[in-house]
Amino acid sequence: MQPLYIHNSLSRKKELFEAINPPHVGMYVCGPTVYSNVHLGNVRTFLSFDVIYRYLEFIGYKVRYVRNITDVGHLVGDTDEGEDKIGKIARLQKIEPMEVVQKYTNDFHDVMRVFNILPPSIEPTATGHIIEQISSIKKIIENGYAYLVNGSVYFSVRKFSEDYPYGELSGRKIDELMNNTRDLDGQSDKRDPLDFALWKNADDSHLMRWPSPWGIGFPGWHLECSVMSTKYLGEEFDIHGGGMDLKFPHHECEIAQNIGANKNPNPIRYWIHGNMLTVNGRKMAKSEGNGFTPEELITGNHKLLERGYSPMTVRFFMLMGHYASTLDFSNDALQAAEKGLKKLCKGIDTLIKLSGGKVPNENVDINAFKEKCYNAMNDDFNTPVLIATLFDGIKTINATAEKIIELSQNQIDQLLKIYVDFVEHVLGIEWDTAFKTEEEVSMIMNEVNLVEQLVNLRSELKENKDWDNADKIRNILSEFGITIKDSKEGSTWSHE
Amino acid sequence: MQPLYIHNSLSRKKELFEAINPPHVGMYVCGPTVYSNVHLGNVRTFLSFDVIYRYLEFIGYKVRYVRNITDVGHLVGDTDEGEDKIGKIARLQKIEPMEVVQKYTNDFHDVMRVFNILPPSIEPTATGHIIEQISSIKKIIENGYAYLVNGSVYFSVRKFSEDYPYGELSGRKIDELMNNTRDLDGQSDKRDPLDFALWKNADDSHLMRWPSPWGIGFPGWHLECSVMSTKYLGEEFDIHGGGMDLKFPHHECEIAQNIGANKNPNPIRYWIHGNMLTVNGRKMAKSEGNGFTPEELITGNHKLLERGYSPMTVRFFMLMGHYASTLDFSNDALQAAEKGLKKLCKGIDTLIKLSGGKVPNENVDINAFKEKCYNAMNDDFNTPVLIATLFDGIKTINATAEKIIELSQNQIDQLLKIYVDFVEHVLGIEWDTAFKTEEEVSMIMNEVNLVEQLVNLRSELKENKDWDNADKIRNILSEFGITIKDSKEGSTWSHE
Repeated sequence: MQPLYIHNSLSRKKELFEAINPPHVGMYVCGPTVYSNVHLGNVRTFLSFDVIYRYLEFIGYKVRYVRNITDVGHLVGDTDEGEDKIGKIARLQKIEPMEVVQKYTNDFHDVMRVFNILPPSIEPTATGHIIEQISSIKKIIENGYAYLVNGSVYFSVRKFSEDYPYGELSGRKIDELMNNTRDLDGQSDKRDPLDFALWKNADDSHLMRWPSPWGIGFPGWHLECSVMSTKYLGEEFDIHGGGMDLKFPHHECEIAQNIGANKNPNPIRYWIHGNMLTVNGRKMAKSEGNGFTPEELITGNHKLLERGYSPMTVRFFMLMGHYASTLDFSNDALQAAEKGLKKLCKGIDTLIKLSGGKVPNENVDINAFKEKCYNAMNDDFNTPVLIATLFDGIKTINATAEKIIELSQNQIDQLLKIYVDFVEHVLGIEWDTAFKTEEEVSMIMNEVNLVEQLVNLRSELKENKDWDNADKIRNILSEFGITIKDSKEGSTWSHE
Repeated sequence: MQPLYIHNSLSRKKELFEAINPPHVGMYVCGPTVYSNVHLGNVRTFLSFDVIYRYLEFIGYKVRYVRNITDVGHLVGDTDEGEDKIGKIARLQKIEPMEVVQKYTNDFHDVMRVFNILPPSIEPTATGHIIEQISSIKKIIENGYAYLVNGSVYFSVRKFSEDYPYGELSGRKIDELMNNTRDLDGQSDKRDPLDFALWKNADDSHLMRWPSPWGIGFPGWHLECSVMSTKYLGEEFDIHGGGMDLKFPHHECEIAQNIGANKNPNPIRYWIHGNMLTVNGRKMAKSEGNGFTPEELITGNHKLLERGYSPMTVRFFMLMGHYASTLDFSNDALQAAEKGLKKLCKGIDTLIKLSGGKVPNENVDINAFKEKCYNAMNDDFNTPVLIATLFDGIKTINATAEKIIELSQNQIDQLLKIYVDFVEHVLGIEWDTAFKTEEEVSMIMNEVNLVEQLVNLRSELKENKDWDNADKIRNILSEFGITIKDSKEGSTWSHE
C-alpha cells in the first residue's frame, strides 16, 4: 500500500505526509465569517476538509481539528479600511452584532448538519480571543515587524521580508506586488501599501471594540487565525486548509504573522486549498444570480434547478470531483450523481443480502481491492478515484448476486466492511437514508392518500359485489395495521 | 383580559410586568457549564424559559434573549478554590479544555433541538468576555467593593452591604450567613468567609488562564453573568432567569457585582426561578442513579423506565407542571402525558377537518375561550391551566364533529387559530409530527410493502381478466408517482 501523499500548496508538490507528533495531527481550517447565509462554495470547502478529517481519523490519526468562526474584524471588501461586515448588518437591522453572529452561526451549523459534515474538535471565535491577539501583536512589535500609527498597528511586510521569505505560498514577489499595488491614498496610516492591519483604532461608529495597549479598537482580520491556530495547535502544526480564494492575502499574512510573533520559520507543514464551484461553467456568485443556497438546492426552488436533490446526492456529487479541481454544477451532473449514488446504495443493499460459501474465490482478490481504495485516498485524498473503485467493486457484487461467480462468506464480509468503511466513514455518505429526506414526508402523505383511495376502491368493488377482491384489499391493509370500519355512512379507516 | 403578571423571586410577589423599554424586552438566563452531558433538570429549566420567551414574543414583545455558555471559571464543588470543572475533564482525558467545551456544547445544542427549544438571540461564552470581565473588576475595585490579595481579587460582601442590601433575593441576612459559614481554613486569601472571587490567580496547573492587571489568572464563576448581561442588555434590564439552585450564592453575587460595578441599585427588574425535577418523589441526581439522560428517556433504555417517550411527550409532560413547582417523573405520569398529548393532537386534527355553517353558534363564545388561554399564560405563565383550557375546548370540537352542536365556519377558523397559536407557537409542541418519529420509518417500509402487494393484486386481477380493476390500481399508484412496468417476467414498479 502506498503511504499518504498530500499536495502541499506551499511547495506545489505532492509530499509524503509525516505528522509532527504522531498519532496526533493538528489541522486548522478557516471557517466562515458569519454575516450572511452559507453558500454552496463554503459547503464544498468544509466538505472537502470533512473528508480529509474523516480519512486521517480513519487511518488511525488522532486529529485535533480547529475551524474558526470569524465574528469580528472582517471588513467589507476584505480591506483594512471601512466597516465590519457583521457590524454593517447589525447597523442596518438595528440589532446587536452578536445577534447577527448567533443567527448566522446557527444557520451555518444547520447546513453543516444537513450535509453530514462533522463538527470540528474546537470552533473558536475571534471575539473570544482578543487577549491572545493583543499578546501576539505585542510580540510582533517586539520582534520589529509591526509599528503603531494613530492607535492602529500595522505589520511591516518589507521589514519582515528582509529576514524571512514573503509570498512563497501565493507565488508572489514583493517587488512585483509593489508595482501592482495602488498608491496609498493619503487617507491610510500605512507606511507601505503592502502592510496590513493587526489592530485598528476604532471610534464610536464601530459597534465591536475593546481596550488595548494602543487604545480602543479591534483586531485585523488575518490575525485571529494565526493566534487561534497557535493557541490550540502549537507554534508548529501539521495542516492548514481553506478555500483557494484565501491564499492571498489571508494565508500569506497568516504565515508572516506566525513567524513574526514566534520566529519559527516553518509554522505550518502542509497547506491544502480547496477549489471553487462553478455553475454551468460560470463562477458561482450572488451577483451572477447563480449562487443558490443549500436550501434552494434541496428543494429545487431556483430558476437554474430543474428539481431538488437530496443532501446526500449533493455531497456525493461534490466528492465525485477532486477537492483541488473546480467543480461545475449543472442539472445533468447532479442527476448523474444521483444515479451513481443510487447504484452505490443498491450495491451495498445487495451485498448485505448476499450469502456465500466456504471456499474463497481465488479469482477475486479482496485485499487488492481494499488496497486500491486506500491508495486512492492516499493519493492526495482522491475521492473520484475512490468512487470509481467502489463502482468497479459493484460488478463483483452483482455477478455474485446473479450467481455468475461465487464468493465465500468471509470474502463477502470483508467486502461489506470495505464498503461501510469507505462509503459511510470516509466519504460520510449516510447510504441507508440517502434518499429518504425529501421522500419521507411525501411518502407519508402518500400513504395516507393511498389508503384513502384503496378504501374507496374497495367500496366500489363491494358495490359491484366483487367480495373477493374487496376482501383482498381489506386483508392487505390489515397487514399494515390499517383497520377498515364499515357503517351506514360508508367506510372509515384507522391506523393501529 | 388580565395583563401579564410575573412572580418576581426578588419581591416574592406576583407583579404586573412592565417592560423598561417596550416593545423591547431583555432577558438573561444562566446557561449550562459545558463539562458533561445535559441532564433532564437542565432541560426543564431551559424549556421553562423557552415558553416564557415564546409567549413574550407571541404577545408582541421583541425579546433579546441572552443565554450564556460557561466554559471557564466554574470550579469543582461550586467553590472558590480548586480545579476548574472543564479543566479537570481535559486533564483526565488529556485533551484541550476547548475540546471538552466543544463536545458538550454540541451535545447541549443537539438536546435543545430535539425538545424544540429555540436558540437564544445571543449565546455568549465566559472565555469570549475576559476583557469585559477585567474591565468590570477594575470598576468594582475603584468603587471600593473588592480587594486584591496575592494576585486574586475578592468581592467584599461586608463592605458592599454597608451601602446596598445583600441577601434580598435569597432571603438571607448577612449576620446569619456569617454564623452559618465555616471559618476560613487559613489556606484562603479571603478576608471574610462571605467574600467571593472575581479573579483567581492561577499557576501552571490551570489550563485556562489569561494575563490581567493582577497577574495571570481566570475570572470567578459568578462574574461572567453580570458582565455579559450588562454588555448585551444594559445596566438595567427586564428579566433574569435560571434554576432555583442558582439563587444562592450565584444570583445573589450577580446582583452585588452589577451594583458594585455600576452603582445602579436596581439592575434587574424581574427574577424568575425554575423549579427542579424529582423521580418517583426523590431528587434527580447522578449519585442516586435516577438521573437519566434525554436519550435514555427517548429510547426507554434505563432501568426506571418502562419504555421510551417521544421528545414532544416529554415536552408536554414538563409543561403540564408550572415552572415554579417541582415536577415528579414517573412512568405513570409520562404515560398520562402521552395520552393527553394524543388527545390534544387528535382534537386539532378533528378541528382541521370540520366544516361549519354560516350562522354562529351563540352558545359558544370563542372570544371568552381565547381570553381564558391568554389569562392562563398572563398569570405567571401558567401552562398547566392553559393546557386544561385547551382540553376543555376539545369538548366543543368533538361535540361539533359528532354533530351535537354546530359552529359557523368563522368560529371554526377562529378556534383553529387559537389552537395553532397556543399549542404550536406558545407551548412549542410540533403537534403534526408529535408521534411520527417512530412511525415514520415503519410507514415508509409499509408503503413499499403495500405497493408490492398492490402490484401483486393487480397481476391477479389481470390473470382473472378483471381489466377494469387492474387498471384502477395502476391509476391509483400512478397518481402517487409509482409506475408499473409489465414484462414477460411479471410486473415491476418504480418510484418516479
